[in-house]
Amino acid sequence: MRVTILGSAAGGGFPQWNCACRNCSRLRAGDPHFRPRTQAQLAVRFADGQSILLNASPDLRTQIVSAPFLAPAKTPRDSPISGVVLTSADVDCVIGLLHLRESHPLHVYAMPSVRRALQEENHIFRVLDRATPPAVWHDIPRDTWFPLETIRAKSGESAPLCRAVPLGGAYPDFVSEGLRRLLPPDEAVVGIVVAEGGKQFVYAPSVPEPSEELKAWVQSSDLCLLDGTFWTDDEMISASLGSKTAREIGHLPLSAADGLLATRELAARGRPVLIHINNTNPILDEASAEHDEAQRAGWEIAHDGMEFEL
Amino acid sequence: MRVTILGSAAGGGFPQWNCACRNCSRLRAGDPHFRPRTQAQLAVRFADGQSILLNASPDLRTQIVSAPFLAPAKTPRDSPISGVVLTSADVDCVIGLLHLRESHPLHVYAMPSVRRALQEENHIFRVLDRATPPAVWHDIPRDTWFPLETIRAKSGESAPLCRAVPLGGAYPDFVSEGLRRLLPPDEAVVGIVVAEGGKQFVYAPSVPEPSEELKAWVQSSDLCLLDGTFWTDDEMISASLGSKTAREIGHLPLSAADGLLATRELAARGRPVLIHINNTNPILDEASAEHDEAQRAGWEIAHDGMEFEL
Repeated sequence: MRVTILGSAAGGGFPQWNCACRNCSRLRAGDPHFRPRTQAQLAVRFADGQSILLNASPDLRTQIVSAPFLAPAKTPRDSPISGVVLTSADVDCVIGLLHLRESHPLHVYAMPSVRRALQEENHIFRVLDRATPPAVWHDIPRDTWFPLETIRAKSGESAPLCRAVPLGGAYPDFVSEGLRRLLPPDEAVVGIVVAEGGKQFVYAPSVPEPSEELKAWVQSSDLCLLDGTFWTDDEMISASLGSKTAREIGHLPLSAADGLLATRELAARGRPVLIHINNTNPILDEASAEHDEAQRAGWEIAHDGMEFEL
Repeated sequence: MRVTILGSAAGGGFPQWNCACRNCSRLRAGDPHFRPRTQAQLAVRFADGQSILLNASPDLRTQIVSAPFLAPAKTPRDSPISGVVLTSADVDCVIGLLHLRESHPLHVYAMPSVRRALQEENHIFRVLDRATPPAVWHDIPRDTWFPLETIRAKSGESAPLCRAVPLGGAYPDFVSEGLRRLLPPDEAVVGIVVAEGGKQFVYAPSVPEPSEELKAWVQSSDLCLLDGTFWTDDEMISASLGSKTAREIGHLPLSAADGLLATRELAARGRPVLIHINNTNPILDEASAEHDEAQRAGWEIAHDGMEFEL
């Protein structure tokens, strides 16, 4: 399978429309050590030529249009995209579903609680029902692999499979108090493991805590794309951009003594890649000491258009 | 004031992600008679340097980032955008509000029924409440001018004003039957008139029927940007892309005997411009007879980046 990074930034993208932090200002000024990034988005192309999306970013229309392998092959309408797998109900993971409203049959995979947070309190997602047949929502099962509808196995091999890895975290603040009380906390944020033809990768753009289960999946994977949101825990506070720490909003900081880069079991096998990078993160400056430090710790830094053949 | 067209296409944009109609295919193939267009979006810059948005398209992040005059001027966060005026609750008019979730205080102007269709059945718009102060929703009054909060008058002149022109039309299909029964039909779709310093323009990206009131506002305006969605009434049907006529989905076709181009009162004064152009519309082909015909009838054809000083 081929994994394409259609977007590598955290929510808001890089630059963020209303942000004049050092990084956003340098990028707007044309500093060659910075490159623009759209909001985190993956596409996975399987052996049968069909693709699925991991999450549905607010930038999804632009991201699909800029990827020739996702263009329709047949008139009048067509797409190799057959499904979307969601890691959470956060705005930056789900808004792209509304870009996909143009009468295309679609399979949407989410934890039951994420589906409820979206469907029960947001009629707007009904636009996906305009398609013939309408979009089909699938509840992701716990602790087991699940197949992807319509994706066919390569001859002589088993069909591609996915599974969710619960990561803790919280439901987005737009979910009502009432509904939130009904939703199990361990379904709020998951990582996704995708496997085909004996190869496997993990995608976890939000890692509140590096659980033993996540470490185990990383250890058995050929590629891991993990939460590179913040360099330090107080990054938003010290930039006067927020009052919460990285950990308080569900992101293990990269540089802490017990942070992501220091957690060896998260980078031990295959290619470790940092993704979902916030506009404040100094690793976005390719001339920075932090960019060097992340690379020396063995990590690649995602950018839009990066591809991995597994 | 200065009116900038940040996006000129109908919902789905051009090319549309899953469309392989003649126009989308020619554009993807690099035919120089076609140019890409994002979904319909206007920005209006007033004499005091502040801007408002007319509608909030699904492409809004990309559109703002590509317009230098909308960049923040002050660290750490800032924007000259102080408000958004909505013409309907359609997905292609409102999804951009979710791009504006990054803690920026905002004034949102909508007909009371459009506000209800969005807020009462869609918790996701609560992300706008994260700002300090939270977003303020203003009900647009009927049959009168309303001022724009925070926009200051040029010295010696009156402050900019807006007003809504009811156009009929329908509420989007994601609105529940129950709520729809409570909403007055004439608030579903409006045009917007904006005036400053003795100049005035009309924006109406969806014109179900050319009412006498709309004609009167067009006649007294220096610029009108009107519904250029479809060339013929059966355009979607004959392209095998849908089962409804242009009129059935709220758009007066351009070429009909009683269509937009033949309605002289819609083009009689100032600059008439066609906007919200669907990917199937032959006027997108700059070498087409239809492109010529629209221009000969006195209309300009909007493209992304077009600007008008009034």
